[in-house]
Amino acid sequence: MTTLSNLPIPASSTDLPPVERRPAIPAGFLAGGLAAGIKASGRPDLAVVLTTAGPAAAAAVFTPNAFAAAPVKLSKAHLAATSGDPRGGFGWAEAVISTSGSANAATGAAGDADQLAIGRMLAGATGVELERTLHLSTGIIGTRLPLDVVEAGLARLVPTLEATDAGLAAAAEALCTTDSVVKVATTTVELPDGDGRPVTVTVSGIAKGVGMIHPQMATMLSVVVTDAAADPATLWGLLRPAAARTWDQLSVDGDTSTNDTVFLLASGASGAAPVGAGTAAADALGGAVEAIARDLARQQAADGEGASTLITAVVTGARDDADARAVARAVISSSLIKAAAHGRDPNWGRIAGAAGNARVATVAVLEAAGLTATEAAARAGTPAVLDPAKLRIAIAGHLVFDGAQDGPVAFDRAAAREAMSAAEVVFALDLGLGTGSGEAFGCDLTEAYVIENSEYTT
Amino acid sequence: MTTLSNLPIPASSTDLPPVERRPAIPAGFLAGGLAAGIKASGRPDLAVVLTTAGPAAAAAVFTPNAFAAAPVKLSKAHLAATSGDPRGGFGWAEAVISTSGSANAATGAAGDADQLAIGRMLAGATGVELERTLHLSTGIIGTRLPLDVVEAGLARLVPTLEATDAGLAAAAEALCTTDSVVKVATTTVELPDGDGRPVTVTVSGIAKGVGMIHPQMATMLSVVVTDAAADPATLWGLLRPAAARTWDQLSVDGDTSTNDTVFLLASGASGAAPVGAGTAAADALGGAVEAIARDLARQQAADGEGASTLITAVVTGARDDADARAVARAVISSSLIKAAAHGRDPNWGRIAGAAGNARVATVAVLEAAGLTATEAAARAGTPAVLDPAKLRIAIAGHLVFDGAQDGPVAFDRAAAREAMSAAEVVFALDLGLGTGSGEAFGCDLTEAYVIENSEYTT
Repeated sequence: MTTLSNLPIPASSTDLPPVERRPAIPAGFLAGGLAAGIKASGRPDLAVVLTTAGPAAAAAVFTPNAFAAAPVKLSKAHLAATSGDPRGGFGWAEAVISTSGSANAATGAAGDADQLAIGRMLAGATGVELERTLHLSTGIIGTRLPLDVVEAGLARLVPTLEATDAGLAAAAEALCTTDSVVKVATTTVELPDGDGRPVTVTVSGIAKGVGMIHPQMATMLSVVVTDAAADPATLWGLLRPAAARTWDQLSVDGDTSTNDTVFLLASGASGAAPVGAGTAAADALGGAVEAIARDLARQQAADGEGASTLITAVVTGARDDADARAVARAVISSSLIKAAAHGRDPNWGRIAGAAGNARVATVAVLEAAGLTATEAAARAGTPAVLDPAKLRIAIAGHLVFDGAQDGPVAFDRAAAREAMSAAEVVFALDLGLGTGSGEAFGCDLTEAYVIENSEYTT
Repeated sequence: MTTLSNLPIPASSTDLPPVERRPAIPAGFLAGGLAAGIKASGRPDLAVVLTTAGPAAAAAVFTPNAFAAAPVKLSKAHLAATSGDPRGGFGWAEAVISTSGSANAATGAAGDADQLAIGRMLAGATGVELERTLHLSTGIIGTRLPLDVVEAGLARLVPTLEATDAGLAAAAEALCTTDSVVKVATTTVELPDGDGRPVTVTVSGIAKGVGMIHPQMATMLSVVVTDAAADPATLWGLLRPAAARTWDQLSVDGDTSTNDTVFLLASGASGAAPVGAGTAAADALGGAVEAIARDLARQQAADGEGASTLITAVVTGARDDADARAVARAVISSSLIKAAAHGRDPNWGRIAGAAGNARVATVAVLEAAGLTATEAAARAGTPAVLDPAKLRIAIAGHLVFDGAQDGPVAFDRAAAREAMSAAEVVFALDLGLGTGSGEAFGCDLTEAYVIENSEYTT
């Protein structure tokens, strides 16, 4: 029988350094979290990460949602102020605060003022400049943060911050909302010091996220800390492509929240030399960051609301990586494929249909943006993203469709169904058109998702 | 209390002629349907619509899915052959056949040969030229059509075709798969004859569709027939914008099938003068076609898999109609909004989040297509599609968000919840930026959808 082993796995899933699912605080950071009382449940809801030796280089990726929350807007402004770069993607930071329980989104000017007040509280409690504070928040959209509760919580939390793995674990826990597990990932990489001798650098990330948008309780947040050294713009140059290949390929319910934020902070405390853009050291550090981002994204997908199965789409043979990622995203975003995964149904027709649709959205958007049909088709690519006669599809290791063999392939349906009972199901597609590859991560669609999201709780 | 009445309803929902939900066969057509035995269930599965006085002008809209089914490819080829226009969107036709039970998609060269054989059977049974046959099919992807069953069915069906409303009703029923109701819509419009005297013209449509893609049982199909007269290119010019404002704004589960097809056939048998492009008569006929398309799309949304509520998003005040339609689509496509509608939860935060996301996809697609970030932002529009400070949102007649008032508006939650118990829930958004308007149609997300689509049935 032809199996998945015939279909190559893209480099991004194998060339990255190995990751351990534990917190490991790099040199130069303190962290901690506690239950301040923002959440009625009494669960941890306030986290702080602080640098110990002055400002760390910082890079960020934020939600592009037009309803960007107050913490997103304030963090961007602070990064722009400390770097002088108006894009607000990188700069210098000494303290990160996360509040859970209220998103502080769609709260207008009052919400912006609240977040600024929290920045002042954080600056006061830690002794760092206001502009060197970064902000995360998650919870219900349209509700205000209880400033007195946050202030009292900060007064208790800041003196207890620790340069320990336990401190980072506490911060990870306080980041969570309805997450069923705390999400942490750590890797190390060797970088040269000033004399070219190898220094072990730690990259460790914490994250939360149950739905890509979930105004009730979720949204995706992450803080990645490292003791590597790099200037902010270089760090941003590493974070953005890593996020594009990992978090941008994550979907739980197809939406993008008002609060999604990733911060990457580099303290430089490892003694490694500053990483220059385009160097081998940058490749190594970028790979470590991507490994953390990829693993956290997989943890987030697996813990999607109501999810029982992690769905991974692996696409190879695309014209380029962007095409591969688009097809992978289309597959893991399809409600029908998600429902079929829940039912352990090797329904390859739904995968073919979703993949065949990946280019459709591109053309439609290009035409809506004012390009003519001909221009749009040219931009979207000729030949098309997908040629049914060249496509191969494997489900959980079973080849089910081969365009070169006129389509459907006889396969052991019972064995495929059994293989789909694993905690992770891989849909592999080889487009047969080029060398582009990519992957995407999602989860099955279950009755529990519907029940959880249709309850009247506002 | 401020209510929905403060938010204008776009012209497209009020300027169209009234529609009745009954079949009414126009002059110049025969129709019928029966159970040929393609479906194991024994339900009707074969429909034919035939012209009585030579070829009708024909226009079509097809799925853009790369996995377009064999009937889609053959119909396009026939339209291209009879019109000489390579785009395959319009031409001349005398017979339409619909088979239900197998999609004949992803079946390779063998499936194409099957569909051609069916075309020859239809031509033989009706005496029309092969190139003047048009084809629809729906059912499981990857399965072959039983040619002998179709041939025997045609031999029984063709002699019984009737120029009656009952004949059209029988065709509508045979189009269905898991549809819970037969979908028909009829309107009339006055057009001038050659001497300028008014002639009453009938436009009547039949449709099916339970999911936008549903390889198991569904896909969206429609045949609209009229006794108006128009050349094929003019007819296409009326059908395309009507479909863009109606069927392109319909989503049940976010996917586009391999088989989606709409045919519009004009027999000219009413005695009305041929409709010229850009004339008042064209506006009138286009309005009638759009009224039918809109009503059928609403019926399809209301009958979405597992659906209990029709969700309509009405967007006004957009920079242009395309923006309005994009925001409306984003709202009715959100899994979280669909789940909230099921739970009668006036969760405006989810609506704000989805609307705020409408431009995001545009920018991302433009960048993926090779435009720089700056170019993409410019193409996507400046100012943005949405400004939180100008947005107003009403749910089922209750104003819940007003950006000019700093966001959330106090509203009677119990009354809003009660109003959301209706068979149709309207989410109205006024963007406050311009005069563009549009609407979109969807349905709630229920446990029944998940159960139906996760069952192991292939």
